[in-house]
Amino acid sequence: MAGNSFGTLFKLTTFGESHGIAIGGIIDGCPAGVLLDLEKIQEDLNKRKPGQSAIVTQRKEPDTVEFLSGIFEGKTTGTPIGFVIKNANQKSKDYSHIQDTYRPSHADYTYDEKYGVRDYRGGGRSSARETASRVVGGAIAKQVIPHISFTAFTASVGNISIDKNIEELDISLIESNPVRCPDPASSEKMESYIKEIRSQGDTVGGTIQCVIKNVPKGLGEPVFDKLHAELGKAMLSINAVKGFEYGSGFEGTKMKGSEHNDLFNADGSTTTNLSGGIQGGISNGMDIYFNVAFKPVATIMQKQQTINSKGEEVEMQGKGRHDPCVVPRAVPIVEAMAALVIADFWLQNKVSKI
Amino acid sequence: MAGNSFGTLFKLTTFGESHGIAIGGIIDGCPAGVLLDLEKIQEDLNKRKPGQSAIVTQRKEPDTVEFLSGIFEGKTTGTPIGFVIKNANQKSKDYSHIQDTYRPSHADYTYDEKYGVRDYRGGGRSSARETASRVVGGAIAKQVIPHISFTAFTASVGNISIDKNIEELDISLIESNPVRCPDPASSEKMESYIKEIRSQGDTVGGTIQCVIKNVPKGLGEPVFDKLHAELGKAMLSINAVKGFEYGSGFEGTKMKGSEHNDLFNADGSTTTNLSGGIQGGISNGMDIYFNVAFKPVATIMQKQQTINSKGEEVEMQGKGRHDPCVVPRAVPIVEAMAALVIADFWLQNKVSKI
Amino acid sequence: MAGNSFGTLFKLTTFGESHGIAIGGIIDGCPAGVLLDLEKIQEDLNKRKPGQSAIVTQRKEPDTVEFLSGIFEGKTTGTPIGFVIKNANQKSKDYSHIQDTYRPSHADYTYDEKYGVRDYRGGGRSSARETASRVVGGAIAKQVIPHISFTAFTASVGNISIDKNIEELDISLIESNPVRCPDPASSEKMESYIKEIRSQGDTVGGTIQCVIKNVPKGLGEPVFDKLHAELGKAMLSINAVKGFEYGSGFEGTKMKGSEHNDLFNADGSTTTNLSGGIQGGISNGMDIYFNVAFKPVATIMQKQQTINSKGEEVEMQGKGRHDPCVVPRAVPIVEAMAALVIADFWLQNKVSKI
Amino acid sequence: MAGNSFGTLFKLTTFGESHGIAIGGIIDGCPAGVLLDLEKIQEDLNKRKPGQSAIVTQRKEPDTVEFLSGIFEGKTTGTPIGFVIKNANQKSKDYSHIQDTYRPSHADYTYDEKYGVRDYRGGGRSSARETASRVVGGAIAKQVIPHISFTAFTASVGNISIDKNIEELDISLIESNPVRCPDPASSEKMESYIKEIRSQGDTVGGTIQCVIKNVPKGLGEPVFDKLHAELGKAMLSINAVKGFEYGSGFEGTKMKGSEHNDLFNADGSTTTNLSGGIQGGISNGMDIYFNVAFKPVATIMQKQQTINSKGEEVEMQGKGRHDPCVVPRAVPIVEAMAALVIADFWLQNKVSKI
Repeated sequence: MAGNSFGTLFKLTTFGESHGIAIGGIIDGCPAGVLLDLEKIQEDLNKRKPGQSAIVTQRKEPDTVEFLSGIFEGKTTGTPIGFVIKNANQKSKDYSHIQDTYRPSHADYTYDEKYGVRDYRGGGRSSARETASRVVGGAIAKQVIPHISFTAFTASVGNISIDKNIEELDISLIESNPVRCPDPASSEKMESYIKEIRSQGDTVGGTIQCVIKNVPKGLGEPVFDKLHAELGKAMLSINAVKGFEYGSGFEGTKMKGSEHNDLFNADGSTTTNLSGGIQGGISNGMDIYFNVAFKPVATIMQKQQTINSKGEEVEMQGKGRHDPCVVPRAVPIVEAMAALVIADFWLQNKVSKI
Repeated sequence: MAGNSFGTLFKLTTFGESHGIAIGGIIDGCPAGVLLDLEKIQEDLNKRKPGQSAIVTQRKEPDTVEFLSGIFEGKTTGTPIGFVIKNANQKSKDYSHIQDTYRPSHADYTYDEKYGVRDYRGGGRSSARETASRVVGGAIAKQVIPHISFTAFTASVGNISIDKNIEELDISLIESNPVRCPDPASSEKMESYIKEIRSQGDTVGGTIQCVIKNVPKGLGEPVFDKLHAELGKAMLSINAVKGFEYGSGFEGTKMKGSEHNDLFNADGSTTTNLSGGIQGGISNGMDIYFNVAFKPVATIMQKQQTINSKGEEVEMQGKGRHDPCVVPRAVPIVEAMAALVIADFWLQNKVSKI
Repeated sequence: MAGNSFGTLFKLTTFGESHGIAIGGIIDGCPAGVLLDLEKIQEDLNKRKPGQSAIVTQRKEPDTVEFLSGIFEGKTTGTPIGFVIKNANQKSKDYSHIQDTYRPSHADYTYDEKYGVRDYRGGGRSSARETASRVVGGAIAKQVIPHISFTAFTASVGNISIDKNIEELDISLIESNPVRCPDPASSEKMESYIKEIRSQGDTVGGTIQCVIKNVPKGLGEPVFDKLHAELGKAMLSINAVKGFEYGSGFEGTKMKGSEHNDLFNADGSTTTNLSGGIQGGISNGMDIYFNVAFKPVATIMQKQQTINSKGEEVEMQGKGRHDPCVVPRAVPIVEAMAALVIADFWLQNKVSKI
Repeated sequence: MAGNSFGTLFKLTTFGESHGIAIGGIIDGCPAGVLLDLEKIQEDLNKRKPGQSAIVTQRKEPDTVEFLSGIFEGKTTGTPIGFVIKNANQKSKDYSHIQDTYRPSHADYTYDEKYGVRDYRGGGRSSARETASRVVGGAIAKQVIPHISFTAFTASVGNISIDKNIEELDISLIESNPVRCPDPASSEKMESYIKEIRSQGDTVGGTIQCVIKNVPKGLGEPVFDKLHAELGKAMLSINAVKGFEYGSGFEGTKMKGSEHNDLFNADGSTTTNLSGGIQGGISNGMDIYFNVAFKPVATIMQKQQTINSKGEEVEMQGKGRHDPCVVPRAVPIVEAMAALVIADFWLQNKVSKI
């Protein structure tokens, strides 16, 4: 219960620090008989890995996943799937500058307060490197429910946002640009802005939107484990996330009921979808869509005043190769967490009724 | 695991339909030796109950909680606390108009799809009546951690929102008006607007802000059970909630890292608090604050086109005494869920280190 | 997690002290659509209740269960089933003699050490009265899996034991005698012995055997949640239980592999069943059978030396109407716990493979 | 929830098949700040590994554990501890003789029935090789609670059993003989008997007794998670275990209450300890002791009639180097599982009272 497991029936438990020997995890509860396409798993990992484009961190990490159990002759066996991803540069760097120094808006201070001890190298467990294990879990979850599609993309960077709604977007364009934005006009502006921000030694935040299609009706377990509540927790558990909204979201609070209600068609679908595919915490068969807010990366290449573990004021400056904007690389993580949630509820729903 | 339990060590499990005999719950894991003030628990219930002011539903329900176990001579004994709240009007109404009809943007359709059967009276399990049990759980949680304060209030109704930040507000004014808004100028406008909306037979949404003060450092269990991830799940599990953000939230996505980072004071506090009291998923001792988005109530007193369980198109109109705006009555629910989360993490943190 | 919940998907959470207002529980995860026979539930409760025969405690408690939710028009709705059983004699007795005194081999001392406070009336939460809620849960579990039968009976009292194996017994005779032993020769001896023991103001232990028939192949979740491991935990959680063995049990430790192996028939059944219907922690379709050891009841009508909460030596003597042998009334509890385990694994097994 | 996790706060999740690349696990919830002696962990593994004496399997597997995370500069950091143990002989053997054949009293048949697919090499996940990961988990648990001692030993092999009670035994002699029996007269007979059984190509069962000393009062979480109920589940989850009893166990069922009750000394200790250190499911500070029954190993070097996956009758004979008696190598596994249970309850008990 110390917080490193996610899911009820399809359960991912992860381990690993940024600069330890390896990160990895165990997926317990994956049904037997799933024919796994291992290349697809690696493809998702490649979308998350550093060094993939000019606007993300230039660190080199191959992020190759090695499966240790639970798969036999290409199929899942129902037993736990153990996997590791070796850390490439585990001994190569000097972290003495942050050993005793608390980086502003990082987890250094809180980890020390909570645990009294901390693997300070590269952020240790609080590093976003941990999310690679989530991508592996999510990539397997997707293959358990191949009929359901998960599509995330960058919806805004700083003040630049797509001003189209989902139906107007051509999602085949997401991977056409390093920002992972399906709107060409916006993606160019975003890319330029990220480069400008980087040249200032600064960082910027943004939002990711995700759409889940072909979700069966009936997923979600009220009253506490509502579908959107678990999706929200899943997204908020990703590093740097500050907010989550689904369907009409915060904008919906300004509407009247007569405008907001989704009227039914005869087949049970709805004429509008302000509900975001979820009513009463249970999927209604319409598209599920939601937005996730990411704050600007805390590590900046500018001098900042801070304190060390003795409470002394010190000055520090970020070193190394960091992301000026975390959003493009977070796209596959959002998809992975969404897939973990949906696969889990899909399994849970198998026993909702006799 | 069917979704009616919340919490890890301090765990609330609830039961009950809107028009059954009673609702209630069990709190398991409440430490022994807590001297309970039962009146305070009822006070929180009274803030949630119907009929308390002119702008909420005029139904009459006393919502009196009866404790059945776990308390002896005024103190918790460490054994499970069972409680019930009897349903006052369980047999008094005619629900034949919704028995086979799916109300737009309610849970009628999804419950039928998921379970194949449904207690249609008053929304059954999907009714917000269920949240009374949460208020009981939260009221006890507050007394486990009496040094920590939970203050929620209405921050917006429709387009009317407080344009002050928390420090500028006088929270002693929250209960001075039926909207539960601490800004007198805004609260009057909100109240008028809700009355106007009601006169149209319509409803409106809004947002609640919550501030938690005196939170010890170290609460939260990364990587999945981050403090804000559980808070987010807790809030999103409340009926009608569409979004959650903490600290800088969605606005923070537009900022640069150099603007967003919270610099340290020598004592470990920070000069700003865009982090919202949480860094790396762990409390840092600063105030925790967050916003919760509520959609407009789906039951409106206007004619709507809809379908019945045979897929036939029918016309329906809301009956009875419903809330034109759920936000004022949701304030104690937000506090309760926040208290459940914090009490649970407070207990969990007792074993973080040797 | 404070120990008052049992089960993973079909989950029972209970509350209640012996002399509080009521005991009860919540069943979460019961599938929707189960047509419940409420009389059968009460029948199981009646087998457990005090006063049913001359050889059990003569206390009068009707033990009537009242369902509060989760059932609509006779069927389960998939929502949590809340229930209460009122305590009949909650105020009638004087417990001052045990308020500060630790009864030998009871839970008085350990509850005080653990919780620092204790509802001393009638044993409080540690009273076997708590098991009535288990019987309700088990009785519903049985109706979820009506094709599977659960048959427990008294196999020994003190040194008197049935010296026949299960196949030789006529289980229709179990309810023909107050001991609940299907072997007439043994049951008479047992009944006489219990009466003799009672006349001495003493108590005696015994064993219960249980057979589960028509269990589908595939139930159980290795490696930790093996079918027999959960059955063992379930039985050991019942008051006064000291041991559990299944299949060949402790006697099997004396055998050779060549004697102990169950050889297969062509249809996958086995010629012998020393495995007790479980191999590798998973049911193989053969009958599951196991034995449960109950110690003699600790409350005796003889003077005993003991201590009080100040560590002073005092003399005490049991008062009231206690069971001279707990085994006959524990028979329905063993069945109930077995049914909870099997129903839960039956649900879990729905998602073992694609 | 698919059964590969054990524990509530101190939680071990394991993975791995007998002949895959590696086995391993994740310990989540280990408190920060525990200075780990890694050699002691390997010592426990060495007691379990094959090839350590003449009476166990002569397979060669070094069973070296490699830690991947959660430990920094010798101390636990509070983050999950990932570890792997490579499989030495993963590709060296021919398992075609069991690929489609169901070995009697193994898990081959039930795994195929449950999952529809199975890694048949060396028993796959159902192999006792899996228990090496438990020994790692238990060895770390012991270091979290170094003041508590865990001592298991062989108490019987076949019909040969120690006829002394624990107080009469010199536990320093356990490791003086390959059987791990502290009674020299018995250990010699046991060793001879195991050798004789092996020469017959047969196997034999036995029992292990375990004593836990210096357990603090108050551990255990009634009513379902009683201390002995979790111990029982822990033991029953070990391969080949058929029974569990604690304190007076099955023998206690034959006693009278007046004989069985443990009378108090003034300091709260008891003059006898038939309760086995646990009353009402909670430790009372006295020694905890229990017995575990192991069946004879199912793999014998004799011809047996069996069936294959097509339901055809075939003849088979065990190959390779198997244990004639699993009991000596199971001693460290019993200790490990006991330590996992006690460490977990020790942590849980930190929040029993305010």
